[in-house]
Amino acid sequence: MRIEVRLAGSGGQGLITAGIILAEAAGLHEGKNVVQTQSYGPEARGGASKAEVVISDGPIHYPKAQRLDVLLAMTQEACDRYFHDLKHEGALIVDADLVPTPPSSSALSVPIVRKVREDLGRELFANIAALGVLAGATGVVGLPALEAAVLARVPAGTEEPNRKALELGLTLGRDAVENPRESEPYEADE
Amino acid sequence: MRIEVRLAGSGGQGLITAGIILAEAAGLHEGKNVVQTQSYGPEARGGASKAEVVISDGPIHYPKAQRLDVLLAMTQEACDRYFHDLKHEGALIVDADLVPTPPSSSALSVPIVRKVREDLGRELFANIAALGVLAGATGVVGLPALEAAVLARVPAGTEEPNRKALELGLTLGRDAVENPRESEPYEADE
Repeated sequence: MRIEVRLAGSGGQGLITAGIILAEAAGLHEGKNVVQTQSYGPEARGGASKAEVVISDGPIHYPKAQRLDVLLAMTQEACDRYFHDLKHEGALIVDADLVPTPPSSSALSVPIVRKVREDLGRELFANIAALGVLAGATGVVGLPALEAAVLARVPAGTEEPNRKALELGLTLGRDAVENPRESEPYEADE
Repeated sequence: MRIEVRLAGSGGQGLITAGIILAEAAGLHEGKNVVQTQSYGPEARGGASKAEVVISDGPIHYPKAQRLDVLLAMTQEACDRYFHDLKHEGALIVDADLVPTPPSSSALSVPIVRKVREDLGRELFANIAALGVLAGATGVVGLPALEAAVLARVPAGTEEPNRKALELGLTLGRDAVENPRESEPYEADE
């Protein structure tokens, strides 16, 4: 079993930190083989940012993600650029406000940043909430492992809001799977 | 030109953060192609930690480091484990106190943690000082790029000690190259 996850958006959204936390949750706390990668260069121009996590029960011979099982897109540009790397049966998770026109009607469209702002007063923890959404919607990693990895990695003094963000995301992710069309109906602008 | 760097030690030494900063310095601030990777799994047991950075002027087809140009080892175990991956003409940088018996007489043995503790009062910034040593000793990345990447990545409010740690490391790295045997003569314990 090999699971390929890509977290994509813009610099400053904390997606590289999120990638490391996801990798440490699966690798250090669930005993999986994990490779976590970020690339910089021509494709990173324009402030784009992406982190990849490959999780496997066996050895990982090729560390880059090629056919994604999960794509979390936190900007429209990242969504449009990477959607074609997603497997047909893969999970597309997008921020409902930052990705107003997802390229698939089966996208899980979750207002991650908005809910974090409303519930926690700051957008700062949206990357951790996004991990919660990913875990709640896909189950690629368990909550205990994810929580342990979050608490080990975030700056001292920010454990509590990060824990809340994680739980908020988990709930949003589970709700999105259970009621995919209810809260955020998708309507194309044009 | 392809440069492979591995930062290896134990969890909690901040080497994954250091790897990301090195990657962002070369990738975002110097315009190189960079892939930054960490692996978890069987080889991470026992608290081992390593981060890899591959830097190239051209496309990077294989993202993992195989023949290292630079190995920074912050524990004896990491040094012993990875020394054989270093090219013959590669640079081995070790913490003088944490790696008491480097496997090569040409190792650059620098008391990174001790000097950070003496100069900054805390060991917390040793990973940033280690980046400074690496830059000062090898020149794989320039100081302006490294400083910009450090300041963009470290927690708000810690910019000043991190900047000092970087400069301290840079000086130590340059001194180690200029006077390789002077300050820290190598004597085997047994």
